Amino acid sequence: MRIGIGMLGLGTVGSEVYRLVQEGRDEISRRLDATLEVVAVAVRDPSRVRACSVPESLLRPTPESVVRDPDVDLVVELMGGIEPAREAVTHALRARKPVVTANKALLAEHGTELFELCDRRRTEIAFEAAVGGAVPIVRTLRLSLAADRVERLVAIINGTTNYVLGSMAEGRSYPEALAEAQRLGYAEADPRLDVEGHDAAQKLALLIGLAFGAPLHWSAVPTIGIGHLTPADLSHAAELSHCVKLLARAERRTGQGRLAVRVGPHLVPRGSLLASVSGANNAVLLDSRAAGPSVLVGRGAGGLATAAAVVADMIDVARRIVAGSAGIGPYLWASGPLPFADLDEEVERAYLRISVQDRPGVLGRLTTLLGEHRVSIASLVQRGHQVDPVDVVLLTHPCRVRDLRLALEAIAKDECVLEPPCWLPILEA
Amino acid sequence: MRIGIGMLGLGTVGSEVYRLVQEGRDEISRRLDATLEVVAVAVRDPSRVRACSVPESLLRPTPESVVRDPDVDLVVELMGGIEPAREAVTHALRARKPVVTANKALLAEHGTELFELCDRRRTEIAFEAAVGGAVPIVRTLRLSLAADRVERLVAIINGTTNYVLGSMAEGRSYPEALAEAQRLGYAEADPRLDVEGHDAAQKLALLIGLAFGAPLHWSAVPTIGIGHLTPADLSHAAELSHCVKLLARAERRTGQGRLAVRVGPHLVPRGSLLASVSGANNAVLLDSRAAGPSVLVGRGAGGLATAAAVVADMIDVARRIVAGSAGIGPYLWASGPLPFADLDEEVERAYLRISVQDRPGVLGRLTTLLGEHRVSIASLVQRGHQVDPVDVVLLTHPCRVRDLRLALEAIAKDECVLEPPCWLPILEA
Repeated sequence: MRIGIGMLGLGTVGSEVYRLVQEGRDEISRRLDATLEVVAVAVRDPSRVRACSVPESLLRPTPESVVRDPDVDLVVELMGGIEPAREAVTHALRARKPVVTANKALLAEHGTELFELCDRRRTEIAFEAAVGGAVPIVRTLRLSLAADRVERLVAIINGTTNYVLGSMAEGRSYPEALAEAQRLGYAEADPRLDVEGHDAAQKLALLIGLAFGAPLHWSAVPTIGIGHLTPADLSHAAELSHCVKLLARAERRTGQGRLAVRVGPHLVPRGSLLASVSGANNAVLLDSRAAGPSVLVGRGAGGLATAAAVVADMIDVARRIVAGSAGIGPYLWASGPLPFADLDEEVERAYLRISVQDRPGVLGRLTTLLGEHRVSIASLVQRGHQVDPVDVVLLTHPCRVRDLRLALEAIAKDECVLEPPCWLPILEA
Repeated sequence: MRIGIGMLGLGTVGSEVYRLVQEGRDEISRRLDATLEVVAVAVRDPSRVRACSVPESLLRPTPESVVRDPDVDLVVELMGGIEPAREAVTHALRARKPVVTANKALLAEHGTELFELCDRRRTEIAFEAAVGGAVPIVRTLRLSLAADRVERLVAIINGTTNYVLGSMAEGRSYPEALAEAQRLGYAEADPRLDVEGHDAAQKLALLIGLAFGAPLHWSAVPTIGIGHLTPADLSHAAELSHCVKLLARAERRTGQGRLAVRVGPHLVPRGSLLASVSGANNAVLLDSRAAGPSVLVGRGAGGLATAAAVVADMIDVARRIVAGSAGIGPYLWASGPLPFADLDEEVERAYLRISVQDRPGVLGRLTTLLGEHRVSIASLVQRGHQVDPVDVVLLTHPCRVRDLRLALEAIAKDECVLEPPCWLPILEA
């Protein structure tokens, strides 16, 4: 049997996908009992196709012509961006042609409608490559944990910020570290989506959909970026045997039937598995009722790793085409929406850095204000002496977030406090 | 649609599987578009069924009666052991009823014939629970890496030895640590299969089949256990910033088209991800041509974690039954057998502990013998002075294993050397 592949886009990932399918031809046929054959490729500008050896006869000027081609059984969308990807994918799914995509932005914006379309038309959209790069998290959530109940998901799913934070831990300033990441290709020319945490929020929303079965738009995820962190935060954390990671978290608060969701920088204890995830790697920690805790770690991005995830999805979907089956069960299987927990009600330990003018009495006022708000201090260190500003670094005992927030609002008004305090939650192991 | 489940065995895992299917009924139905219904359960002694609420009307005296039941669409084998499990599973597959099993021993002995039977009859045997407990390694190798080429697989897949080594690192002797593991339920009454490395070899052989597509009997895996290690080895390793782990390894030696395969204790650098896998956890590090390095970590065993993996496999297989599809492509897809690399030709760094009588000249003779065999010393420490015996602890530069082996054979003949030297390879990051 021959499965006709229609590709949309032939950039870095698309070229690698084409190459993997061609070079892996024999092995894929043996593993699949069928042949994957690329029969049409939509490219915006055929004259610019150079990087790979796609025969000119396969090139098509528009995504529609590929999707409508009767020889195309499976559509591989690698254009990126929202339009015309959304339109092409929608057409394919309506025609009951399954889709494989690496397009996180598309799924973040239109995932719910595309998933509902799949469920209605009994077809499927596979997107392992869209979240977590080479980390097989989509498959693990959809298949391995199908009989389990995820209680907690904590992920490092933005390679750019992980790289930048690691670089800052070595003493570089935020702008230096970011420039370095851009030079190495780990950060976009416009890095805001990454460093402000929105890329992580988009991926987290997709993972929450898979783990908890309910749709969620990423813009609803409370999100804090890393732009306010200084190298001093990284070195204070290191002295306290922690490192700083941008984490995407979703945790059931079982008493309330609610989900505590957020993206932001955290202190992570140095001995933990997440702390050892360095550079542009990604990791997902899952805590499930039956399976217990588990961690998946791998490359977060890169054309070849992404292409391998795409081709694995193609083989997986092709198996179902060969078998004449359609779809893989509903995407959104929860019986109702997922109410969020109030983050103000969370109880957690925190790291605080408060930049102050070193004047008599200032430390007393800070600690008094914290105490008045029921924030109990586990340790306090004053960095620097008789220089302005000095950093007062505190670790708290577990405290209610609302109390801490109100305490910090009061502290920020103190005349000796020079900028808004920096506050990072501490991840419990 | 209703999928009839026939269970073979109702021990710890079987009872948990039954409970998960009952309690998860609604959610499984929503995720599957079908209902899983246990319609028959084979138990050896019906009078002893107490742990769970299986209605008496479902109990059957023999596996055959369950497998032959026309209401049974899917067979879940949880009896353990070889017979009568092999016979029942064979009957089921011949009748094109897919099988889910957690029976590592069965697959280790008869996997190749069962896989061939599946391929011939176009049905399937799912066994995520048989290897690596809650670590989704079977699915990752079969699906996520289907388009990739695994270059290296290094696994901690025996929770017993990992627990015992961790306990010895805290200063306990080998017998103390083993007794403790038995008390906690991490080790069998007869621990030989675990501590001699054979359990790890069985699992490695299965993983090699999945990763490289060729059958392999576990007894062909060169295997060394942990019984010869002393607490001193663990503390020497710790002083050298390493820990000791029983590793199962399979690595392509690309120049030769061969696979270097072995099970045995290794020194692992402390900062690495595998070093942080503690207690009875399991971990698999994969290095693939396209996806790069990745690591999966999770609980290695436990009735509930195993049951969750079994039910996930049931849902996965049931999806294909619902879709009317059969099988998931060949198990053994390699074009030929896998020739082994000669371990004697491997080049690696090593840890050596040589117990000697502290006499003048002994150290000179040891280092001379190593040098004569082209084994270059990176560091040498003598533990103890003027007490017998003293431990000479060496780390070598990379050397050929054959040279090292011959050097140690010569050293073992020295009159001052009290016991065969302890030699552990060092895992390169």
